[in-house]
Amino acid sequence: MIINTHEIRKAHSRIKQYINRTPVLSSKSINNLVGATIYFKCENFQKTVSFKIRGATNAVFSLNDEQAKNGVITHSSGNHGAALAQAACWRGIKAYVITPHLSPQVKKDALKLYGAEVTFSDAMLESREAETKKVMDRTGAELIHPYNNDVVICGQGTAALELFEETGELDFVCTPVGGGGILNGTAIYAKELFPNISVFGGEPELAKDAYLSLKNGKLHPQLPPKTVADGLRTAMCERTFRLAQKYVDEIILVSDGEIIEAMRLVWQRMKIIIEPSSATPLAAIIKSKKMVAGKKVGIIISGGNVDLKEVLNLF
Amino acid sequence: MIINTHEIRKAHSRIKQYINRTPVLSSKSINNLVGATIYFKCENFQKTVSFKIRGATNAVFSLNDEQAKNGVITHSSGNHGAALAQAACWRGIKAYVITPHLSPQVKKDALKLYGAEVTFSDAMLESREAETKKVMDRTGAELIHPYNNDVVICGQGTAALELFEETGELDFVCTPVGGGGILNGTAIYAKELFPNISVFGGEPELAKDAYLSLKNGKLHPQLPPKTVADGLRTAMCERTFRLAQKYVDEIILVSDGEIIEAMRLVWQRMKIIIEPSSATPLAAIIKSKKMVAGKKVGIIISGGNVDLKEVLNLF
Repeated sequence: MIINTHEIRKAHSRIKQYINRTPVLSSKSINNLVGATIYFKCENFQKTVSFKIRGATNAVFSLNDEQAKNGVITHSSGNHGAALAQAACWRGIKAYVITPHLSPQVKKDALKLYGAEVTFSDAMLESREAETKKVMDRTGAELIHPYNNDVVICGQGTAALELFEETGELDFVCTPVGGGGILNGTAIYAKELFPNISVFGGEPELAKDAYLSLKNGKLHPQLPPKTVADGLRTAMCERTFRLAQKYVDEIILVSDGEIIEAMRLVWQRMKIIIEPSSATPLAAIIKSKKMVAGKKVGIIISGGNVDLKEVLNLF
Repeated sequence: MIINTHEIRKAHSRIKQYINRTPVLSSKSINNLVGATIYFKCENFQKTVSFKIRGATNAVFSLNDEQAKNGVITHSSGNHGAALAQAACWRGIKAYVITPHLSPQVKKDALKLYGAEVTFSDAMLESREAETKKVMDRTGAELIHPYNNDVVICGQGTAALELFEETGELDFVCTPVGGGGILNGTAIYAKELFPNISVFGGEPELAKDAYLSLKNGKLHPQLPPKTVADGLRTAMCERTFRLAQKYVDEIILVSDGEIIEAMRLVWQRMKIIIEPSSATPLAAIIKSKKMVAGKKVGIIISGGNVDLKEVLNLF
């Protein structure tokens, strides 16, 4: 399929009865601090507490009955797994999730809450993929990859659709970069609607595979999973890399310290709870103050799954 | 004056251009847990991060030019001081706030941010009142008490007005109880609009002066300020006590542990940041599960001014 605004609109019609219409919030004090007008699309208020429910629901409800009958399977550091489990539950099919031992406890608990059958693995992609293959062979479940899947990317693009419905044209839009699902879904929708918009990805320096891939014109493998932004430790795939080459203007790298500072800012000023990954685009925009001065900026707040005790140690 | 829905509506017309129309949120998982439908009026998203801006703004803009010309004054270590400073700033008059030396730095900073002229005093009430008297004598500023003031109570009642505009009739409404401003403003508006509604105050066991006052029919003095709900350490005055006798159905006592647990629940499930005082009514409703089963309940979330480090330590 070709991912475009038409397909993203179709995805939105398919999933909107299941998901929340999340609010678009602004903060005067953050605007003053950055010197730009920022619109936060708050997917921390989304079902399963992240945007991942959009792609997962679109994928699960795009399967025909034959494809769906043995359930769905994925490997995920947390949010996509919970989303897939919830979407499968809505459709009444099984969900199998392979997840790293090191995922936050709150994310592991969520997987169980939504009824997934959970298998643990190493954090590195190879280990996760090998484990996934094993469970697929045993169950015949349909693989719903967290981002190496056009239908999932279309679903993620629906957050931008809703954002722009409320804001109209923006000068910039910025999302976190993990595997590239939300980044490309947003970029494709944004660029087709507003050809002059600039699309940025905010990426942790400690997981700068997307930055290196785009810089060198060659897909870079995953880096050791060390960043505090646990949702962004994964790497792009060939599919999301090629799309990003075409649709994304720039990857902006930010340190873990900058991510934590941006997260603290959102907690303190906006009184909403977001996870470290979600703070990455704001950190990137703060770093790009000169470029965005006086402009309108959209930011996708990707989710709000945090362990409160762990966050205390960050602040 | 007589506080009634008419006066509260007038207050709302007076202040609505200045304040935020805060959202009314619900949480499916908290509803499931309590077994009732709860509507949270989220004053943690309010200007100055608490409902206090309603009463302060109503008071400041109700003054005639003669009364206003020398500014306004209050003694406060908390949210009312910041609210009064902000309201005075909107009217373009001076605000004097007497605050204890030992007040947290974050609160002193907030007072300066909103442009108050701050005078430090001893923590003891007599010292604060003496200091206030001195500054009043010097400046001629008009005293705006945080709750011993009908115009302030009318302003606080506007949160309930907005809540009911969105929910229609409810079976119960519950607010925190400190000095009794928000409790009585809410109670008077609710009872006149919906004679069958039950109005509860949620009060910390460690600050149960309102509970004792209503039980014994005699105003009880302030208890030692020990509860974690720092906004509720104060006591009712004769004015708010008499109103509560007439309009409030019950004061429900909750332990500090129950307050922290309710606060954790809101942070985790709703992904919004509320201060301990704000969690007190939810703790009271959880304690009253049997009574509210299957019913519609309104809760005023009073504010979100917290030191993140301190609160995360409570969890």
